[in-house]
Amino acid sequence: MLKLLVLCLLTSLMFVQIAEARIRHYKWDVKYEYKSPDCYKKLAITINGGTPGPTIVAQQGDTIIVEVKNSLMLENLAIHWHGIRQIGTPGMDGTDGVTQCPIVPGDTFKYEFKVDRAGTYLYHAHYGMQREAGLYGSIRVSLPDGEIEPFVYDYDRSIILNDWYHKSTYEQATGLSSIPFVWVGEPQSLLIQGRGKFDCSNTLSAPGVCNASNPECSPYVMTVIPGKTYRLRIGSLTALSSLSFQIEGHNMTVVEADGSYVEPFVVKNLFIYSGETYSVLIKADKDPSRNYWMTTNVVSRLPNTTAGLAILNYYPTHPGQSPPTAPPAGPIWNATAPRLAQSQATKARQGFISTPPATPDRVLVFLNTQNLVNGYIRWAINNVSFTLPHTPYLVALKYNLRHVFNKSPPPIGQDLQNYDIYSVAKNKNASLSDGIYRLQFNTTMDIILQNANTMTTNNSETHPWHLHGHDFWVLGYGIGKFDIHNDHKKYNLVNPIMKNTVPVHPYGWTALRFKADNPGVWLFHCHIESHFHMGMGVVFEEGIEKVGNLPSSILGCGETKGFGRP
Amino acid sequence: MLKLLVLCLLTSLMFVQIAEARIRHYKWDVKYEYKSPDCYKKLAITINGGTPGPTIVAQQGDTIIVEVKNSLMLENLAIHWHGIRQIGTPGMDGTDGVTQCPIVPGDTFKYEFKVDRAGTYLYHAHYGMQREAGLYGSIRVSLPDGEIEPFVYDYDRSIILNDWYHKSTYEQATGLSSIPFVWVGEPQSLLIQGRGKFDCSNTLSAPGVCNASNPECSPYVMTVIPGKTYRLRIGSLTALSSLSFQIEGHNMTVVEADGSYVEPFVVKNLFIYSGETYSVLIKADKDPSRNYWMTTNVVSRLPNTTAGLAILNYYPTHPGQSPPTAPPAGPIWNATAPRLAQSQATKARQGFISTPPATPDRVLVFLNTQNLVNGYIRWAINNVSFTLPHTPYLVALKYNLRHVFNKSPPPIGQDLQNYDIYSVAKNKNASLSDGIYRLQFNTTMDIILQNANTMTTNNSETHPWHLHGHDFWVLGYGIGKFDIHNDHKKYNLVNPIMKNTVPVHPYGWTALRFKADNPGVWLFHCHIESHFHMGMGVVFEEGIEKVGNLPSSILGCGETKGFGRP
Repeated sequence: MLKLLVLCLLTSLMFVQIAEARIRHYKWDVKYEYKSPDCYKKLAITINGGTPGPTIVAQQGDTIIVEVKNSLMLENLAIHWHGIRQIGTPGMDGTDGVTQCPIVPGDTFKYEFKVDRAGTYLYHAHYGMQREAGLYGSIRVSLPDGEIEPFVYDYDRSIILNDWYHKSTYEQATGLSSIPFVWVGEPQSLLIQGRGKFDCSNTLSAPGVCNASNPECSPYVMTVIPGKTYRLRIGSLTALSSLSFQIEGHNMTVVEADGSYVEPFVVKNLFIYSGETYSVLIKADKDPSRNYWMTTNVVSRLPNTTAGLAILNYYPTHPGQSPPTAPPAGPIWNATAPRLAQSQATKARQGFISTPPATPDRVLVFLNTQNLVNGYIRWAINNVSFTLPHTPYLVALKYNLRHVFNKSPPPIGQDLQNYDIYSVAKNKNASLSDGIYRLQFNTTMDIILQNANTMTTNNSETHPWHLHGHDFWVLGYGIGKFDIHNDHKKYNLVNPIMKNTVPVHPYGWTALRFKADNPGVWLFHCHIESHFHMGMGVVFEEGIEKVGNLPSSILGCGETKGFGRP
Repeated sequence: MLKLLVLCLLTSLMFVQIAEARIRHYKWDVKYEYKSPDCYKKLAITINGGTPGPTIVAQQGDTIIVEVKNSLMLENLAIHWHGIRQIGTPGMDGTDGVTQCPIVPGDTFKYEFKVDRAGTYLYHAHYGMQREAGLYGSIRVSLPDGEIEPFVYDYDRSIILNDWYHKSTYEQATGLSSIPFVWVGEPQSLLIQGRGKFDCSNTLSAPGVCNASNPECSPYVMTVIPGKTYRLRIGSLTALSSLSFQIEGHNMTVVEADGSYVEPFVVKNLFIYSGETYSVLIKADKDPSRNYWMTTNVVSRLPNTTAGLAILNYYPTHPGQSPPTAPPAGPIWNATAPRLAQSQATKARQGFISTPPATPDRVLVFLNTQNLVNGYIRWAINNVSFTLPHTPYLVALKYNLRHVFNKSPPPIGQDLQNYDIYSVAKNKNASLSDGIYRLQFNTTMDIILQNANTMTTNNSETHPWHLHGHDFWVLGYGIGKFDIHNDHKKYNLVNPIMKNTVPVHPYGWTALRFKADNPGVWLFHCHIESHFHMGMGVVFEEGIEKVGNLPSSILGCGETKGFGRP
């Protein structure tokens, strides 16, 4: 009897332990396969045969282990866990050149990290422009047992919005790195959870390449039960496009952004930028005898890409039944005001406010410009266009390797006062550097992202900036030049939302604050894949001396060749 | 005065030393660029901006140093020096998975080896199917000062013949590794020294992609001075095609093959297989007031690829002047007899005969078959389809690493007696293995390559087999099944040519002999790139215990991750 009691106790203890620190173990095989996500057959990078890859479903506190086998034949690989801060595991951030050496074909790399906070996150390739070849997916982290969300819903769904090119990433990247510059143009289609519809009649392609009846490009269907409330987790991993998303006849209540609870607000059009995630609640309270369109449209650029379509299917209506109405038109593509309004409306939810430090220790102003470097078109921050080093910073700094990157930090600001953000710069030239910003550990950093005119007259683009390893407080947005004397007085220090990705609107500015409290080396960059390829990023180091032993698996390239003997 | 004398002596000593062991130092940057070698624009791999890459011109005894920078963005790289035996430098053979780890993007790898023998050689990528993306070129090694060739010519020229696909190697390789199998089909064009002509009117492609007047695809022109004799060094690096090559109105005298002098014979059509090189002498003794076609055609497969054209330009006729006659038709594509006849006519030149050992120590019969492995179409040798390991054999064997490859050697022969080479095999299944043949050092090996029917009724293909690290004596060719009791009696042991690449004709056999006297690990494989990709190869180890320290640069992948710290 006593034995039984002891056994019972032990068992429950074991159970508790399991519940507290569950391990979610995935094995992924990454390879090139022919796929037709928008009816047009092209090579895509798949995980276990699919693009998007499997959704990682976990609970706060779980450890995620993903064993990634690189079966790409010739290409290396790295996978970033977008929104996961990697506290204590900076080597698992999956960023080629920053936190790890790429995974070579045939190798299996074990990513292992904790998901320490509930929320909606993403994963995607972070090597060259592989992300837009299809290597991406969702991460959904739920609250610990017993904790509840501050809003109510019946079911949970995840979708990713994406834009899709028919040219390979090689073709795209080679064009971007050429003189003359060759621009791949606007994407061929928009995908909702990996499904879009390219108009096959528009193509001269060989027979069999474009097939409108391929089941791979049948629209994504989200089936709902009348009367129920759905939490729809929406992420964007577009290569280029800023998007709006809408559900015909249904309002959406925004309740989460990048893992933080949002003071709820209702939208008809949800604007979403590459690298962002939102949770919206939708109530299935419309006529259940028909289906409804879910659509996504390009905004901020003249849309030359057909809208993406999916189906909101009311059970028991047949999921294949087309809605009887035409898909709703998206919002006006070049109206910045409603997009700015949504940005400004996104605030931390009452009861879940993390108050930022009242003042920063250091302010960096990042002027975003389009430039020429040796005749190549590039993007630059404070006139420096970023290049990745050959040896990952994290390893170089930890092992104190010399000559691996430029020891001069990039400029800490620019003469904004005298810079005309509304004109093409007179001197278009910038320089290349792989220098980084070294931050004092635990200090409070303010970043002002200032947008400007590109090298085209009357043109300024949207740039969604994503910070690795942190969330930041979003203190404010504005259109025009940031007023260094006055605009900081308007910062929202009461209930700013914390995010990891934030848009800088055309001709606008965005102000962020974060604590440099996560030992490691972290990329901060425009999430438009071609923009980062063309130099639109910076790197922060903080507390490198506090970083423990690095996993040997991240070593082996550049100056670390020969490190990490197993 | 004395000082001057000493200085003078020292200087001459230094000069002698330089003359005896000259170093030829090259720096190559390898990247993807848009090229239009046949008027159709596609991504090609270039060396210093060109495809073919620069011709390496050296003298016997020179040391070649090539510093290869991998600027391919995402792809690794390895370069093989085809025909160079790498005596004492087995780690410089440039064969991914066999002799080295691939070069990762951003890395610079230093190849360093001696060219110990005059002759005509090649170089090309040996990683995945990168060769056919355009990474290839010529190596021309001249005799030492004071030595002369056994034939006379005025000028020396090098050209490479190639076939060219418009699809990327990714698209091709993915199709080959798919169920159902997707065959890329016949090449779109044949290139002579990197230039061909695709018929742009045949393509539905977007405007600007195919441009018949692009100077990149103007035909290759070889200008000759009337009355002079030219040594034309011809190599083939086709992905698939067996070729004939001809010069309108001119005979060609074959004098060299794969670096060995040939007892001269005259041809109108030179048959050449992927991986082979020939030197032919041509006399510019025709009407000099016009130009002549140089052409290349597909043989051994039903030609669906337009002939390749170049211009033999008689000075002072304008090089742009088209010959007044139609290009000569090639030989009948499916006549095996004349091709066999050329193979058999190729013998070592009197005075330059290397006599083979009279008998072998060991005979291996390699039955070449097309098979299924787990439903995938593969090629197999003795029913084993080759796969490359993740850690290079050379390193694994030298460091005695376990578990890196299958310790069971592949079969040493097959029941030829009972195998019907003229039929599709009843049991098509084969197995995969990365096991290797371990040869006793310094023994004499005989290899019988036996061709057979593919999985298609009434079909047997030509396979050019290439041996790394050695030349072999070509003892004989035949059509039909090798008669183990009688055919060896017909071997040419008197004046067999030594080569590194040799065809196995449809339904035929080819017998080779070589000394296992070069310490290292050496690939022996069909030089058709898709065939090797599909398993058509074997590996020989010999004298691994005699291999000195390996260069650290070849380490770092697979089980050697962490080896080779600089």
